[in-house]
Amino acid sequence: MTVRPESGVTMPSTGMLDEARRRDEVDPLAEYAREFATDGAIHLNGNSLGPPRGSLAAELDRVVTGQWAPRQVQAWFQDGWLDLPRTVGDKLGSLLGAGPGQVLVAGETTSTTLFNVLTAACRLRPDRPVLLIEGESFPTDLYIADSVARLLDRELVVETRTGFDEYLRDNGTQVAVALAAPVDFRTGERRELRPITALCHAVGALSVWDLSHATGVLPVDLDANAVDLAVGCGYKYLGGGPGAPAFTYVPTRLQSTVDFPLSGWHGHAKPFAMAQTFIPADDINQARTGTPPLLSLVGLNHALAPLIEVGIHELHRRSKDLSGFFLECLADRRPELLHQLASPEVADRRGGHLALRVPQVNKVESALADNGVLVDARPPDLIRFAFAPLYVTHEQVAQAVDVLCRAVEGL
Amino acid sequence: MTVRPESGVTMPSTGMLDEARRRDEVDPLAEYAREFATDGAIHLNGNSLGPPRGSLAAELDRVVTGQWAPRQVQAWFQDGWLDLPRTVGDKLGSLLGAGPGQVLVAGETTSTTLFNVLTAACRLRPDRPVLLIEGESFPTDLYIADSVARLLDRELVVETRTGFDEYLRDNGTQVAVALAAPVDFRTGERRELRPITALCHAVGALSVWDLSHATGVLPVDLDANAVDLAVGCGYKYLGGGPGAPAFTYVPTRLQSTVDFPLSGWHGHAKPFAMAQTFIPADDINQARTGTPPLLSLVGLNHALAPLIEVGIHELHRRSKDLSGFFLECLADRRPELLHQLASPEVADRRGGHLALRVPQVNKVESALADNGVLVDARPPDLIRFAFAPLYVTHEQVAQAVDVLCRAVEGL
Repeated sequence: MTVRPESGVTMPSTGMLDEARRRDEVDPLAEYAREFATDGAIHLNGNSLGPPRGSLAAELDRVVTGQWAPRQVQAWFQDGWLDLPRTVGDKLGSLLGAGPGQVLVAGETTSTTLFNVLTAACRLRPDRPVLLIEGESFPTDLYIADSVARLLDRELVVETRTGFDEYLRDNGTQVAVALAAPVDFRTGERRELRPITALCHAVGALSVWDLSHATGVLPVDLDANAVDLAVGCGYKYLGGGPGAPAFTYVPTRLQSTVDFPLSGWHGHAKPFAMAQTFIPADDINQARTGTPPLLSLVGLNHALAPLIEVGIHELHRRSKDLSGFFLECLADRRPELLHQLASPEVADRRGGHLALRVPQVNKVESALADNGVLVDARPPDLIRFAFAPLYVTHEQVAQAVDVLCRAVEGL
Repeated sequence: MTVRPESGVTMPSTGMLDEARRRDEVDPLAEYAREFATDGAIHLNGNSLGPPRGSLAAELDRVVTGQWAPRQVQAWFQDGWLDLPRTVGDKLGSLLGAGPGQVLVAGETTSTTLFNVLTAACRLRPDRPVLLIEGESFPTDLYIADSVARLLDRELVVETRTGFDEYLRDNGTQVAVALAAPVDFRTGERRELRPITALCHAVGALSVWDLSHATGVLPVDLDANAVDLAVGCGYKYLGGGPGAPAFTYVPTRLQSTVDFPLSGWHGHAKPFAMAQTFIPADDINQARTGTPPLLSLVGLNHALAPLIEVGIHELHRRSKDLSGFFLECLADRRPELLHQLASPEVADRRGGHLALRVPQVNKVESALADNGVLVDARPPDLIRFAFAPLYVTHEQVAQAVDVLCRAVEGL
């Protein structure tokens, strides 16, 4: 099924549509939407995949036909392929508030990258029994944390966000590592990095963050917040493409002591010496593993260009404008739906998405998709709307609210 | 630097060139070479990257423009993306002598895939202290085995190929897992899977194989040889592209007991139920980890089509013909170089490559590259020549030998 709006179906109230167009007209970021191959759909889905940039296929052709074919294995050296895990990492660093040489894209999936980081984090606190995690975490974080705890013979403690802080205060000296996320993947509710990280440090625990639902839309200021270790995916707001490789953050101060289990040859101090013994690189390169999946790395690298150009604070500003306008349109069109908001009302307490409680979520999601509006049902009762700063416009938001209201009226 | 033969430089003796052309003319596989974008170079390098198929850029465009852009996240379901780890796995299975549902491409690097498999293998023998590995292994295998041994508190024993067998015979009941490779990555010397695997089983150890230097050029008959677990890269003879993701082999008989540490959500029995507890899939899907890097998976899938069409036995036959012809040309042109063969003389005792001992290997490698012949120097004294069945021709082999002889004469 190609998702495509049926002609004439989306007709928001003229007032809000005019207002949407006015806001897009004055917003310097609105023009970026033309760079993306949205195929006529309105992308408010916050899960793995937004639209590709229209120039991606040409970029892949340039790499395959212009680099690989003529230079083959030498392209690793002559075309910067071997440096990509680090150059892409540094670009990500600029979105994350991390100075150069502290972020790396090894080429693994997010789950595996988290495994690598959590294991290394626990090793930095060998005498503490507890690995603490938020119960609201994305499921794979729970699975991986459980696996790491089992491998290292630690106790996995799962707490709600409230209980998490309490546990740290009451039992913090038992905690080796505390894993949290700055944005709840269901409700979009923010979690401030600074106080949790500071609380971890006060009790001597390591603070690890999964930034997947924040990166590219919310400033996280990793260096300023003294975060210990972090990971995040390459898709969602980064738009790096299906299954784009994940990133690892290791601040300079931990690079001499961290000890990753995925000690593949690319993380060696001298990978091409082909030595029999592993000696990790003494910088961020130690977070490398094996030979990285280059085509997917190229996809991620290509996606970053407009995000870097705009900068994280403008990306955040635009996303808040869009989600705020969504609520204004709801207030105009069907104010009772505002009572179904499962997210904080204040934009600064949300990440890039918000959620509404709606009956028959799968039916509503399908009705929206049939009208060219892509959202995520999160059963049993949530519909998630994400506001990617560069390819969503105010006009699309107004249209989406109209489609949503019709869908809910039709239940 | 674009590697390209200088006009008129390669002129093998007319006799061998005529013979080469005659052999290409009668070989039904010779025509495949036209499918590859070799850019005029002769690819005898056996490391990570041969030439791409000429149709790859169009295939990537088809996926980006024809699937991702119009269907976005729904392409995971509607275009078979979610099944690719398994459909690509089954295609690989046909090259590996593995029945359907036993090979999977999770999307991780080779090093990480080996970590996952070695850890799971050790867990199947919880009471045995030793992880045994060949000293001739590719370095990353040594690094990863060391990491796994350290994590699981096992003893890593590194033995030469000869000592490896002896160790198994003498101390086999101490061995949890024995890791070997069917082809020595330096010399190309084969290692029969059947007797080592049988020896492992006789002493109750698990037999794990790194198939990276064999897959796509040498039959390994995993099912028939009763191999326990195996991994391999997606590049080298598979041609899956730079850093193409690795594969995992788990025979049906072990799928109910194997326990992987990289328990990402894609390996869950019901990934989209988003449950809090990890329950692994009861089939090969348990070898999945996180969301796989799709563009690189597409590259691997595209590379497999001609290999599957030809079949592993014809691929092997053609590679042996080419390497045998290489030695014939050497005998004709400079027979004393045959004494420098570091590999078995008999083709059936080699994998897809062979190596010569040569002084100043880096200088020779460069001289060859300057004349459009790509090989691998393996310092201190080896030059490796690999004979990929589908893009190397007899005519190229004759030309390469001529260039090699001139380079050696010029030392």
